[in-house]
Amino acid sequence: MPVTPEKTRVGFVGLGIMGAPMAINLIEAGYEVKVYNRTDRPRVQEVVDAGGQRVATPGETATDTHVVITMVNDSPDVEQVVLGSGGIIHDAPPGTVVIDMSTISPRVTRDIAARLGEAEIDMLDAPVSGGDVGARNGTLSIMVGGDSDVFQECLPILEVLGSSINLIGGHGAGQTTKLCNQVAGALNNLAVAESLMLAAAAGLDLEKVLAAISGGAAGSWMMSNLAPRILSGDFAPGFMVDLQQKDLRLVLQAANELGVSMPGLCLAHQCLNAVQHAGLGQEGTQALIKAYELQHGLQARKR
Amino acid sequence: MPVTPEKTRVGFVGLGIMGAPMAINLIEAGYEVKVYNRTDRPRVQEVVDAGGQRVATPGETATDTHVVITMVNDSPDVEQVVLGSGGIIHDAPPGTVVIDMSTISPRVTRDIAARLGEAEIDMLDAPVSGGDVGARNGTLSIMVGGDSDVFQECLPILEVLGSSINLIGGHGAGQTTKLCNQVAGALNNLAVAESLMLAAAAGLDLEKVLAAISGGAAGSWMMSNLAPRILSGDFAPGFMVDLQQKDLRLVLQAANELGVSMPGLCLAHQCLNAVQHAGLGQEGTQALIKAYELQHGLQARKR
Repeated sequence: MPVTPEKTRVGFVGLGIMGAPMAINLIEAGYEVKVYNRTDRPRVQEVVDAGGQRVATPGETATDTHVVITMVNDSPDVEQVVLGSGGIIHDAPPGTVVIDMSTISPRVTRDIAARLGEAEIDMLDAPVSGGDVGARNGTLSIMVGGDSDVFQECLPILEVLGSSINLIGGHGAGQTTKLCNQVAGALNNLAVAESLMLAAAAGLDLEKVLAAISGGAAGSWMMSNLAPRILSGDFAPGFMVDLQQKDLRLVLQAANELGVSMPGLCLAHQCLNAVQHAGLGQEGTQALIKAYELQHGLQARKR
Repeated sequence: MPVTPEKTRVGFVGLGIMGAPMAINLIEAGYEVKVYNRTDRPRVQEVVDAGGQRVATPGETATDTHVVITMVNDSPDVEQVVLGSGGIIHDAPPGTVVIDMSTISPRVTRDIAARLGEAEIDMLDAPVSGGDVGARNGTLSIMVGGDSDVFQECLPILEVLGSSINLIGGHGAGQTTKLCNQVAGALNNLAVAESLMLAAAAGLDLEKVLAAISGGAAGSWMMSNLAPRILSGDFAPGFMVDLQQKDLRLVLQAANELGVSMPGLCLAHQCLNAVQHAGLGQEGTQALIKAYELQHGLQARKR
């Protein structure tokens, strides 16, 4: 049975920069939403003002609701709110669906899904791409792992939150797909950095170089979106270096488990390490180029 | 004065997979074209059949013409046809313009431009991107270095050959921009390889993964165009590994001259070395992934 607003109450755990606007979108779509956040923040009050019913534990978001969404930072956070003290597993009745939209380890995802399965609770892993803008506009890209029937049932909720929604495979497949996404993005970002550094070292007009190459075979979302910010000296975060590094650690952990060698991704991760150690972890991922700039004493900027 | 077909005869040196269709496009646009090629090939006859007047030396393409285009393999080839025995410099009258559309060293380009300048011959470096399809359709992307007045004069010819034409800066700036293009393209290709290998090692449905990630922040021309060929096992060359490696050697040479560190590009170059040493240098650049497949005994293909 599809989870329409008329029939379904929803729990939402984690009202961060992504979670808060997602919860508000569900409320505005007509869902009754019970919300939980560990800390008090203005953002939490915004969700309550929009109509969210705040409760005292993650578990309480699962009483009288059918679907509980988790949107927290990392694998241990999901383990805590789902399996820990006061966690969802202790209060959710059989038949509940937990949709974890955080980006975490595929292996931990499979472990949590197995534990929930023993309690007859279903799980989807459904990490997202598209940033806070996508979260606000309901245009996230959602990569899903889990059972096909559960996915179909939950589609009305996912369609409120995202515009590109793909079931890839079983438990963990959504998380692994998100990691593949991060691998390609990080290396495309490295491509922008090395390309611009060569042009800058040669003294070229970087805007003319970008205009000449970004529409062709060298083009990428990263080149079209991040390179102009680099040239204008705008390092405000669309997606923060510190969070990207968490994702790349998940990639390298998955690569270790699967026995895959990823030298390029590892290089991008190391460049971002240098950026973090220069105190720039709160900047946007376009700051990757600063690993090169610091090394060369040369800036890739508009003249 | 713009070099219109009514007023201008053109010389063309190098009737390879790119040069032959480019020369034919000029003939079909109404230019009288004198052509030279070192070897006899069916392709040369095609140009003659289309109306090209074949001559015996590169220099002869420059007698009674105002513009001579060179489209050969590498820096020594351009040096030979421009400065060597029977070369353009010996026969071209002052005021001639040499447009070198090969991809060669920016430093060698500046040296040749200086030598030509002493003979009062102008030069543009105008390497292209877009492959044999772009050459046939007259839709190449052309990255130009040289004098602005000479560029303006030659635009009517460049507009026959390409659809995106950008003057970047002085002599060599077109070549350096082409190298920046190759850097970004090669690293975006590496991004596709590592992303697909992670997905393949995890046993995911690669077509579903691509559908989920290629439209977003991880997207690139390489992902949209090469990844589907990889999945279907199509390694026919759009752009050949052996030629890509020539370009990447030019990049590393330029990086050495400029003192720029390019670890990512170097990694892509080394992966393609492995592909070449496996005897696959005549395949398309999407074969970069085979460096990973060989290492892992795992193929990224449709199931």
